[in-house]
Amino acid sequence: MDSRDSDITRAAYAGGMPHDLLSRLTAELGPHVTTDPAALEATRLDRSGWRSAHVPLALVHAASVDEVQAVMRLAHETRTPVVPRGAGTGLAGGAIASAGAIVLDLSRMNRVLEVSEADELAVVEPGVLNGDLNDAIAPLGLWFAPDPASRAISSIGGNIATNAGGLLCAKYGVTRESVLGLAVVLADGRLLRTGHRTVKGVTGYDLTALMTGSEGTLGVIVEATVRLRPRVSGDIVTVAAMFPDVEAAAAASAAVTSARIRPAMLELIDAAGLARVAEYLGAPALEDTPLASLAPGETFLLAQTDAAGAAEEATAIAAIFAQAGGRVSTSTDAASGERLVAIRRAMHPALASRGQVLIEDVAVPRSRLPEMFRAIERIGAAHGLVIPTLAHAGDGNLHPNFVFDGEPGAVPEHVWAAADEMFREAVRLGGTLTGEHGVGVLKRRWLADELGEDSFELQRGIKALFDPTGILNPGVMFEVAA
Amino acid sequence: MDSRDSDITRAAYAGGMPHDLLSRLTAELGPHVTTDPAALEATRLDRSGWRSAHVPLALVHAASVDEVQAVMRLAHETRTPVVPRGAGTGLAGGAIASAGAIVLDLSRMNRVLEVSEADELAVVEPGVLNGDLNDAIAPLGLWFAPDPASRAISSIGGNIATNAGGLLCAKYGVTRESVLGLAVVLADGRLLRTGHRTVKGVTGYDLTALMTGSEGTLGVIVEATVRLRPRVSGDIVTVAAMFPDVEAAAAASAAVTSARIRPAMLELIDAAGLARVAEYLGAPALEDTPLASLAPGETFLLAQTDAAGAAEEATAIAAIFAQAGGRVSTSTDAASGERLVAIRRAMHPALASRGQVLIEDVAVPRSRLPEMFRAIERIGAAHGLVIPTLAHAGDGNLHPNFVFDGEPGAVPEHVWAAADEMFREAVRLGGTLTGEHGVGVLKRRWLADELGEDSFELQRGIKALFDPTGILNPGVMFEVAA
Repeated sequence: MDSRDSDITRAAYAGGMPHDLLSRLTAELGPHVTTDPAALEATRLDRSGWRSAHVPLALVHAASVDEVQAVMRLAHETRTPVVPRGAGTGLAGGAIASAGAIVLDLSRMNRVLEVSEADELAVVEPGVLNGDLNDAIAPLGLWFAPDPASRAISSIGGNIATNAGGLLCAKYGVTRESVLGLAVVLADGRLLRTGHRTVKGVTGYDLTALMTGSEGTLGVIVEATVRLRPRVSGDIVTVAAMFPDVEAAAAASAAVTSARIRPAMLELIDAAGLARVAEYLGAPALEDTPLASLAPGETFLLAQTDAAGAAEEATAIAAIFAQAGGRVSTSTDAASGERLVAIRRAMHPALASRGQVLIEDVAVPRSRLPEMFRAIERIGAAHGLVIPTLAHAGDGNLHPNFVFDGEPGAVPEHVWAAADEMFREAVRLGGTLTGEHGVGVLKRRWLADELGEDSFELQRGIKALFDPTGILNPGVMFEVAA
Repeated sequence: MDSRDSDITRAAYAGGMPHDLLSRLTAELGPHVTTDPAALEATRLDRSGWRSAHVPLALVHAASVDEVQAVMRLAHETRTPVVPRGAGTGLAGGAIASAGAIVLDLSRMNRVLEVSEADELAVVEPGVLNGDLNDAIAPLGLWFAPDPASRAISSIGGNIATNAGGLLCAKYGVTRESVLGLAVVLADGRLLRTGHRTVKGVTGYDLTALMTGSEGTLGVIVEATVRLRPRVSGDIVTVAAMFPDVEAAAAASAAVTSARIRPAMLELIDAAGLARVAEYLGAPALEDTPLASLAPGETFLLAQTDAAGAAEEATAIAAIFAQAGGRVSTSTDAASGERLVAIRRAMHPALASRGQVLIEDVAVPRSRLPEMFRAIERIGAAHGLVIPTLAHAGDGNLHPNFVFDGEPGAVPEHVWAAADEMFREAVRLGGTLTGEHGVGVLKRRWLADELGEDSFELQRGIKALFDPTGILNPGVMFEVAA
């Protein structure tokens, strides 16, 4: 799994583009085709910290469904691999250059084609950024609920391709629950339409759900009909608390659930993470926040309630946090609430600012959170690693961050060994090795372990059905046969 | 499509059970196997009003996963069709005897295996009735949200097999959104596990969603891990109104959506339906309800709001209904609210009490409801049919009821001709021929029309992948090759 294999890299550069294919691509797509080395180089990366060993043959910036179909028809005819790519913000290497591939960049397909207020839906091209759609529909009192932390920079096509999660899933669901229908270009260039413009619809198998989370391995999403909701009105109340250790914070989180309260957001940052955040934000930014007087080992838990009932829920949560031993701060005004949420938001920049980091993404049943935290601590100690961890505590999704020194784009083997132990522990606890980032190339070697042999075989069968020649994002999810 | 083909019926009875298969089934499953003619006869029916032309070879009341696996292994070896069946409450002929089949009845697998309060989930066998699970978890303050009108009598396995909808979907989602994971016996007897005990999880393709709504054609659901929610607390407020015609009521419904209000329930009954309900319930039951002074052509619209904010939302809805020309009644107490909902609940019994009825299930985008109502009226007039119609107006799902004279179990061709026109109109308006009941045998001849050729072909491919010998519920969704 070393991305610095210079033989492979040289071979990819030297191989170049088969002349016939390049000339045909250019004939059909003109200036939307590029072989500029810098542009090709950029497609080797996403936001995972991983770098592909390969440079693609060409990069196509498709501007229409027709162009995507043209690319796929040519690729199909010539058996050329195609990597569909959106905003490049993936965290699992699911949309980075692979050997001998055309990278099919969809970021120029960024039009909101329709907003129906009456039907509470939007029809969008895949390159529309999540945040841009929300900006466009906010004045109408509407909201697209999927809320990955990357919403300002990630595309809706990418959100769908990974079935993106985020901070609000326990209350508002994952991306799949906001996708009504798709238009998908199949491996041979045909255009498939799935789903409906209605909330209900059970005609045949749910290909919309099958495509959601399929990471570009079954088709290229070129249009999505997404469900909108009324914007949540009323107050947003923020409750933050510091706990003496991570077990106490996890217990407080579980107590909120047991009280049958479902906050919109319930986020946890462990002591190692908090130390990084405090250092990154600096003392002035932390004044009047719970981090101003941070004791060693302390863990941060942040809840936000919304809509009618927000105040009562927040009061109940504050009481639960205090009962569980937390130092509690409650904010009912937007500005001071935002200062508390800013602590959470600073986690990734704080980590990225110092050394290399592999952001992991296990999920476990909520009740197993304390065990998972203990396992992460144990694994870190055994491998000599610091693993600052953030959790969407409301839905049991943890992001352990493996921090290490080294060259960009390479993850040392001892880090993978630690990650391997962590994945196995998450699965043993009834969880999964990826809650929301996807399998990509980074986690494919654990896929069969989690799924089991029968499921893995059926999934390979589905892949073969949709992509019989194996040209769609080869190496993502499944190993490429040697 | 005539179920009274006595030649086929006689052949099925006379053919009997191949001796070897019967003796092997009995050796493995003992008294859980029956060939009692009355028991076999009962499997020809569901609640659709349709009757299968076939009597099955045997009926097995499986009591365990092992027994289901034993049946499937034998069926696989002998190429015997298997019809998975739950509570028999289907409305599309999706679980009724087919030619030469073993009917695999799962109603005895009715244990709630686990309720996890901390993880807000339950693990159930497929035969657990929806209402029974809700009764069991209500004391814990938990709720299983899928709410088909049949919830008291329909099984959770059947709810999942059809991706059942119901009255609360616009606010609380369809069944798929409450299914976290499944155990499924495959066509050859292997046991497949899908999904997770977590809200999030994106390892591989979403086989849980693929199985949900697959109507027994891909595997036999033997266990489900379902998501529970906190019970909705606080008041429930009911707002009912009578409108002079169906267009005015549909416009009022649209105005609620436009005001960004999402009631828990928004139900509409047209004039033809109301006339039946009024007759069925009788004058004393209608005292103090809007139906006490029913004028010809009047349409009934019923909204219910819940949770924090219920009162404010109800006030806003009442104002919108009045503005749209409705005679409005609002109930804040449970008893008088229940009297209003009872009008809605009486619709199906009222229809079933007089003659034969084919309950249809189209869905259209909410904004197209007035057009769909006009189309139904036009089609009824053209075919000399009365089509009392009920709509889940909040999500655009209509149940036009084709009322006709005739023998039980047979739908006359002129009724199918009218249904055919209605299906095509729903699809033309951006909708679907089945919102929540499924395709079954009744609507399979329209499946390819709605899906289009490419999707239909892929769906057949998925069927062939999971069921290569075609023994799982043959004739449901797809025609059996001659």
